[in-house]
Amino acid sequence: MTWDILNVIGTIAFALSGVFVAMEEDYDLMGIYILGFVTAFGGGAIRNILIGVPVTALWEQGTLFFIAFLIMTFAFFLPAFLFETWLKWGLLFDAIGLGAFAVQGAIFAQEMNLPLSASIAAAALTGTGGGMIRDLLAGRKPLFLRHEIYIAWTMLAGIGVGMGWIQSMPGYLILLVAIILCRMLSVQFNWRLPRSKWHERRTQ
Amino acid sequence: MTWDILNVIGTIAFALSGVFVAMEEDYDLMGIYILGFVTAFGGGAIRNILIGVPVTALWEQGTLFFIAFLIMTFAFFLPAFLFETWLKWGLLFDAIGLGAFAVQGAIFAQEMNLPLSASIAAAALTGTGGGMIRDLLAGRKPLFLRHEIYIAWTMLAGIGVGMGWIQSMPGYLILLVAIILCRMLSVQFNWRLPRSKWHERRTQ
Amino acid sequence: MTWDILNVIGTIAFALSGVFVAMEEDYDLMGIYILGFVTAFGGGAIRNILIGVPVTALWEQGTLFFIAFLIMTFAFFLPAFLFETWLKWGLLFDAIGLGAFAVQGAIFAQEMNLPLSASIAAAALTGTGGGMIRDLLAGRKPLFLRHEIYIAWTMLAGIGVGMGWIQSMPGYLILLVAIILCRMLSVQFNWRLPRSKWHERRTQ
Repeated sequence: MTWDILNVIGTIAFALSGVFVAMEEDYDLMGIYILGFVTAFGGGAIRNILIGVPVTALWEQGTLFFIAFLIMTFAFFLPAFLFETWLKWGLLFDAIGLGAFAVQGAIFAQEMNLPLSASIAAAALTGTGGGMIRDLLAGRKPLFLRHEIYIAWTMLAGIGVGMGWIQSMPGYLILLVAIILCRMLSVQFNWRLPRSKWHERRTQ
Repeated sequence: MTWDILNVIGTIAFALSGVFVAMEEDYDLMGIYILGFVTAFGGGAIRNILIGVPVTALWEQGTLFFIAFLIMTFAFFLPAFLFETWLKWGLLFDAIGLGAFAVQGAIFAQEMNLPLSASIAAAALTGTGGGMIRDLLAGRKPLFLRHEIYIAWTMLAGIGVGMGWIQSMPGYLILLVAIILCRMLSVQFNWRLPRSKWHERRTQ
Repeated sequence: MTWDILNVIGTIAFALSGVFVAMEEDYDLMGIYILGFVTAFGGGAIRNILIGVPVTALWEQGTLFFIAFLIMTFAFFLPAFLFETWLKWGLLFDAIGLGAFAVQGAIFAQEMNLPLSASIAAAALTGTGGGMIRDLLAGRKPLFLRHEIYIAWTMLAGIGVGMGWIQSMPGYLILLVAIILCRMLSVQFNWRLPRSKWHERRTQ
């Protein structure tokens, strides 16, 4: 139950992030729906293909499709001034989506008895794959380039679940909260991962 | 039989659209073949993966591959002045490809007993997926941004077939003609879908 | 045994090429790992999906993942001046990767009893798919546009193995050496494939 609610929140957050990008690029209504759906469901689809979940599982999410559709339609007609409010909350929703989807992806890989590498990849792909497709289709700089630590936090889920350390609902929830917190703190305090010194040298 | 002919026309139309883009970008012969094949067969491949048709079905299209190869070779050596003539007809061929592939995609999903959402997605992916990959690989603005209604017409096939309203060859042909007509009329009369007012406001 | 060594060399060469691109684009450590892994393993993953190898095979490469991880970590901390040396050798390593992966891809398709078209596609996808994803994600001009003949050489493997002409280890090794040589000679002597005359005419 808790899980379903988180899945819904993650789906909504990602669908809306696709809608916002589509609106910023001045796509038409169809483009807005497509980018929203792709962002919300694309990461899960790639994960299913790569870890061998039957792809037909994708089409058993009728309720989620419907919720995403309603939310996107609502967002399209939302008065512009309300968007500004949303955007302030967008970062938190995005972090919730990132966390919920990363944990869910790692559990999927674990249930298929795949090795650690698959858990890490499934967590990263589910958490960030939709946003990656969104950015590719919209011709934007991809998620890699977010300044504050983003994709790396999905490894908490990939390693924690993939190593078998966490395998119960309370543990999953703690993991989720940890990812959300880490992501929000990264933005707040501008945490970054190291970069190579090569670039600096070359561009001098 | 009628169906096979339409499939061949759709394949040729899309293969040629890939060839044209590759030539405009000044690709070499290999790049031209690749972009042509990807445009003609990429949409069907993505659809098969996402709705669970065994992917090996992709490789049973030997005759179609051969036809596409001949046409692309022919196009490569075509005198430049003939291209100009072709380009005038290109829009119609592209609409035929869009319609034929959209109807075919919806039928595929229907035969796998998948829900409405899968029919809509299969029609859209089969009809436009190849062009999407073509534009991604060529670094072009994607199909979303075509001004006149394009992807939305595939929903006629997705919904008509997915709801079970249309399930016989005459019905499929009417659907096909409807999509072609709607697409051509969209271009002729500059039909557009609504856009969000948010963009205007932000860029003021 | 020989085969395993070649596979390792190909994986290392491609992982490093991903790392270099990521460093040039000034990605952070996580971005560097991701682009490296995607370049090294992405081509094989696409091939498996398209020719119907169970995708779980992807996750049985634990040793290769580990080797790639070590090499990428090492490259990240490598002093800048050593890179310059590497870059001179990079072209050869890349050619080895191209050849080893193309031959391997063709053999995969052949073992699945797929037709010639699948062998050609599998050789091309395995040999160049990883680099294609790398360039897409990094927002770079794709491999198509390499001036000297590149993708076309994978057809030696696709046709040679797909036609059944070559089906033993000595033959595979000769094929590998032939692809490496052809690629290096293409660069050395600036071999190019013909282009259409259409482009020249239009841009006059």
